[in-house]
Amino acid sequence: MVTIKDVAKLSGVSPSTVSRVIADNPRITEETKKKVRKAMKQLGYHPNISARNLVAKSTKAIGVIMPSSANTALQNPFFPEVLRGIGSVIHEARYSLSLSTGETDDEICEEVKRMVFGRYVDGIILLYSRLNDRVTNFLREQDFPFVIVGKPYENESETTYVDNDNLKAGKEITKCLIDKGHEKIAFIGGSSDLIVTKDRQDGYIEALKEAGLEENDSYKIHTEFLKSGGREAVEYLLSLKEKPTGLVVSDDLISLGVISRLEESGYSIPDDLSLVSFNNVYLSEITRPPLTTVDIQIYELGAQSAKALIEKTVNKGEPAKRIIIPHKIVYRDSV
Amino acid sequence: MVTIKDVAKLSGVSPSTVSRVIADNPRITEETKKKVRKAMKQLGYHPNISARNLVAKSTKAIGVIMPSSANTALQNPFFPEVLRGIGSVIHEARYSLSLSTGETDDEICEEVKRMVFGRYVDGIILLYSRLNDRVTNFLREQDFPFVIVGKPYENESETTYVDNDNLKAGKEITKCLIDKGHEKIAFIGGSSDLIVTKDRQDGYIEALKEAGLEENDSYKIHTEFLKSGGREAVEYLLSLKEKPTGLVVSDDLISLGVISRLEESGYSIPDDLSLVSFNNVYLSEITRPPLTTVDIQIYELGAQSAKALIEKTVNKGEPAKRIIIPHKIVYRDSV
Repeated sequence: MVTIKDVAKLSGVSPSTVSRVIADNPRITEETKKKVRKAMKQLGYHPNISARNLVAKSTKAIGVIMPSSANTALQNPFFPEVLRGIGSVIHEARYSLSLSTGETDDEICEEVKRMVFGRYVDGIILLYSRLNDRVTNFLREQDFPFVIVGKPYENESETTYVDNDNLKAGKEITKCLIDKGHEKIAFIGGSSDLIVTKDRQDGYIEALKEAGLEENDSYKIHTEFLKSGGREAVEYLLSLKEKPTGLVVSDDLISLGVISRLEESGYSIPDDLSLVSFNNVYLSEITRPPLTTVDIQIYELGAQSAKALIEKTVNKGEPAKRIIIPHKIVYRDSV
Repeated sequence: MVTIKDVAKLSGVSPSTVSRVIADNPRITEETKKKVRKAMKQLGYHPNISARNLVAKSTKAIGVIMPSSANTALQNPFFPEVLRGIGSVIHEARYSLSLSTGETDDEICEEVKRMVFGRYVDGIILLYSRLNDRVTNFLREQDFPFVIVGKPYENESETTYVDNDNLKAGKEITKCLIDKGHEKIAFIGGSSDLIVTKDRQDGYIEALKEAGLEENDSYKIHTEFLKSGGREAVEYLLSLKEKPTGLVVSDDLISLGVISRLEESGYSIPDDLSLVSFNNVYLSEITRPPLTTVDIQIYELGAQSAKALIEKTVNKGEPAKRIIIPHKIVYRDSV
């Protein structure tokens, strides 16, 4: 993908000059225009109509990008709750909100490019962080304002992000099971390339190590952040010779599936099997039994990310920040 | 509020000519420009920067407006589900989605005006319908493409809307209680100016009438579409001398509050009190007991509204349509 930056480099002008040439700004000399247009042609760069708005002032809009498949994501109560937090802040600041609808990585990437090149938004909030994410790489390359809800997979110090201390939380919640005498503890997480899964799993592993318990690779399961993911994980675990007695589940909606599948097989929680969970979405108090889970303050994650992004869009020089939202364990009846 | 239409009328030109004058289009004669500018001055019409984009082509974006307070709305699983349906269709069509974040009527109205005058979106989906709604009136006045999820409060035949047959559904679900011998049946609905509440309540009343049961005004309660709304409704009902034995609740999240509050007071469902509900969001199968509820196909309501809106934005001559999504009763254990 040829960018304005490439055109700027080749023609020896600044990217904003290129934008002005595209917008046919009268303050740019014909000579410069010629030079830039030649570079554009040489590189095969075709600005779309919206790119002509690049020199426009603030759009007073921000983009919110959900992980691949908004269709799936919106089934998990995490997302409406984080959107609530974002919405409250951007509304206060009189910004509008543009929501991604893409399903595949390709589609989402295309959507983000449209937002950026079309200058539809002043900045972007990514509601996920995963290894080698193309969208993140693109936004860095373009030097476009963005904030991650989650921990970036690299260049941590150059990126503003809002996260929980998921490693610590993972360790603490696993200890809840260890303290009750559990020794065979499995971990059920989301996709293994998501940083949040990695962090929570690392916390789980640290807790096992500290307690002198053995790590068992067949006890680490990665699935989708859906009820069905939880059901599948249980089916696999029940097929093992040595079944675990404790489960660390990294998402309440997965836990819902875990509970329903265990119930079907006649397992009783917490008598036959104990379970701890993450997120504290509202359904965690209506499951039977109600879940012992980590309250990660989802609303606050959203609100703080929006605040940080607006600061960044208003002031380009705003330094990168790491904002950690405190978590706390909510004790209910699943252990 | 002075609109482009008013300016057009006074100066005797078409609204699009006014837009072109605002955009200082060279194809408009100086004479026309003078005439239009005079009318603008006379009427006190001040186009903002974005209004200059009015002659621009399609924005390939649609706006989605939630009922007052996105902050509250997003707590109800109805909204993420309807957004999922909308998202899937507009994504397929390569449109983007702009979500309202306003809390009060004033704020939402202002947001919609910004979307329309700023030409940020090609069309708007209203996720509610209420009596004398200012947003609906404004969109009609502007002749801006919009679709309602719900039934319009007036000009039904001129408005495209996607709805369930809520009257019929309300009647059928009330009959579930009557057929089991209940005679004292209360109705708990959302705000009384919402058309959906009115329709479902009318169905409830019709069912009572047909069965020769008496209507009781103290059995009609209107509250917020939240768990807390359900709790408050129960508190009121328990304070009555003649307590109902059956409840028709027009929203699953309200039902969740109803159940939790009844449980606290030692009432058992369905033994002491039966309950039927509406919407069939996923939490209706995890409550204890699981809810007998009307499946209104929320995802389909969203998808069909987006399809209808895109048709309208592509083809201005598309006739107004009434799209009724079938409902069905899901029988579980709350009766």
